[in-house]
Amino acid sequence: MSVTAAGGFTAAGIAAGIKQSGAPDLALVVNTGPCQAAAGVFTANRVKAAPVLWSEQVLKGGRVSAVILNSGGANACTGAPGFQDTHATAERTAAALTSATGTEHSAAEIAVASTGLIGERLPMDALLPGVEAATAALSAHGGEKAALAIKTTDTVHKTAVVSDPAGWTVGGMAKGAGMLAPGLATMLVVLTTDADLSAGELDAALRAATRTTFDRIDSDGAMSTNDTVLLLASGASGVRPEAAAFAEAVRAVCADLGQQLVRDAEGASKDIRIEVVGAADEDEAVTVGRTIARNNLLKCAVHGEDPNWGRVLAAIGTTDAAFDPDALDVSINGVQVCRGGSVGEDRNKVDMRFREVRITADLHAGAASAVIWTNDLTADYVHENSAYSS
Amino acid sequence: MSVTAAGGFTAAGIAAGIKQSGAPDLALVVNTGPCQAAAGVFTANRVKAAPVLWSEQVLKGGRVSAVILNSGGANACTGAPGFQDTHATAERTAAALTSATGTEHSAAEIAVASTGLIGERLPMDALLPGVEAATAALSAHGGEKAALAIKTTDTVHKTAVVSDPAGWTVGGMAKGAGMLAPGLATMLVVLTTDADLSAGELDAALRAATRTTFDRIDSDGAMSTNDTVLLLASGASGVRPEAAAFAEAVRAVCADLGQQLVRDAEGASKDIRIEVVGAADEDEAVTVGRTIARNNLLKCAVHGEDPNWGRVLAAIGTTDAAFDPDALDVSINGVQVCRGGSVGEDRNKVDMRFREVRITADLHAGAASAVIWTNDLTADYVHENSAYSS
Repeated sequence: MSVTAAGGFTAAGIAAGIKQSGAPDLALVVNTGPCQAAAGVFTANRVKAAPVLWSEQVLKGGRVSAVILNSGGANACTGAPGFQDTHATAERTAAALTSATGTEHSAAEIAVASTGLIGERLPMDALLPGVEAATAALSAHGGEKAALAIKTTDTVHKTAVVSDPAGWTVGGMAKGAGMLAPGLATMLVVLTTDADLSAGELDAALRAATRTTFDRIDSDGAMSTNDTVLLLASGASGVRPEAAAFAEAVRAVCADLGQQLVRDAEGASKDIRIEVVGAADEDEAVTVGRTIARNNLLKCAVHGEDPNWGRVLAAIGTTDAAFDPDALDVSINGVQVCRGGSVGEDRNKVDMRFREVRITADLHAGAASAVIWTNDLTADYVHENSAYSS
Repeated sequence: MSVTAAGGFTAAGIAAGIKQSGAPDLALVVNTGPCQAAAGVFTANRVKAAPVLWSEQVLKGGRVSAVILNSGGANACTGAPGFQDTHATAERTAAALTSATGTEHSAAEIAVASTGLIGERLPMDALLPGVEAATAALSAHGGEKAALAIKTTDTVHKTAVVSDPAGWTVGGMAKGAGMLAPGLATMLVVLTTDADLSAGELDAALRAATRTTFDRIDSDGAMSTNDTVLLLASGASGVRPEAAAFAEAVRAVCADLGQQLVRDAEGASKDIRIEVVGAADEDEAVTVGRTIARNNLLKCAVHGEDPNWGRVLAAIGTTDAAFDPDALDVSINGVQVCRGGSVGEDRNKVDMRFREVRITADLHAGAASAVIWTNDLTADYVHENSAYSS
């Protein structure tokens, strides 16, 4: 059901011819109201794609009437002409929606998102007519097709829904398979709700949710230029939810979509859950977890089902977090292979045959903890990413 | 000629049975004087191997009479028993040299270095008798054998020599093929000279040299627990060199050995020279270069001979260095594929068939520059590092 699980939304996904393969490549999500409050979080990368620069401006107004998303091109590092392409896309979407609904739509309330190769202009001669086709295809059941149209190297489309007994729903779709990294994982995400909430309330719930979900996925340490996560509220349910219940629903949908991103990461054969406990504070737990998650040697070892805990310690040792090297404990899949910074239980006891691998590092420096998810490093990852643009 | 190119040194390399393969695994370098001044730099990792903890103490005295080095085991994360093993190795070396030379040797002046798998005790029943055998094998022509005995996954042994017309020489050997990263690349290096210099003079030359050579190699972003670079001076030439000439000789030997490490990096098919120019200061140039060097997606692209400059910009954008995203230029092998943060010359003009790939990033934010060397990311790297300890 994806983004159309919540009332007050229509969506479409079509093949506009942006991708040479002829696969679906253009998605449109429209908020039919009565409200159009919205919030968004974007990549922390200082090199931002044109659609990110555009949508950041749109979201400052706190209102989004529609989101137009394309795969098949990131429109990043394309300079002023690329920004003009994004602007033209929003204008064409506004015109098409005005014509189709009889209600005036403004480009200033239309968010744009793009994903694909960096450094190439989008084929606007295909994209702009596609906007008309997508508008004509809008449907209250179009969520799945929209989710399909934003895929790049994703092998499956990703959707999630949480419904509250009080009568409101949060639904969403996501794409992302490579360049998964913090601040945020490389992803486009659109979340919708029919709850009745202000832009400020949406923003608070979204930031809290992404901080502990998408921001703690680090598949390959490479931060994208295009990450975009939007949350749109139509108010169509007429229900004003309790803040904590709504925040938890948004967190649950983000966590679900985040797990789907990890499970579909390019070339990965293992999902690695790294839990850092006993940290002095949460920031240090996140830093240590992220450092472990980015250690290529450890990622290779996990791929080889080798419980090489020395590589965990070597990674921890590069951080400036509070810990005593002689007090570090590391468990892999429940076996404490490192105790007090030295050899613990027999590493041959560790069973690593399954896709999920759990690494726990205890810093013995405090009471804070954090979980970071990453993937193994595989020959398939190398193959997929050495041939991406050719 | 390696470490015995300089007068006043003997060396040996033998197979002590530490490696199950029966390959050479124990090296001994002895300074026969008349002077025994020494300097050393060690890994910045807070998780330090026992031999690093030991040798740091030895070097504080500024005198080293011998270095005993083993491959086949890192003696890292082995706790107090591992430290006792290092201590026993130094004591046995001192006793063997005292017995062989008739001159009293103290363990407090014997540096120890180890390389291999983390988290396992060394087979002392093989190593200690090996110390006797290595002492018996010492020769003024033993430098090559010593260089062979410190190899782990290295495919070739690495040596370099610079001789000055004034009558002094700097020679050296290195090992290192994986876990190459800053502060320092994972390496054991012993440099020797017959110049007559104090420990303080050696330290200044060594720190200046490693800062711009070994510290700027970043093969895989993974910092070791065992990195050790030692510089020993015998004074046997009787010549006190001019400080600048000596510093340049040490730098040249370090740069030569560093290049040999890059060319032999595990699984690599490309050596990537990343030059950052136009930086506000040298630290920012190094930070940006290192960030580019650690981007797995870029490393995969280079492996695929794909001039994917967007991944260079995406990496730069994650740093807090001074730059304007719309002013960034990137050249690959001399073709300016990115100009002003956007599309530059045709990427199809870039010829990437050769092993060396040159990436230049101009931040247009100042006059500082730095060069970082890294390698591509390959399926062979994954294979080699997913099976290392098994």
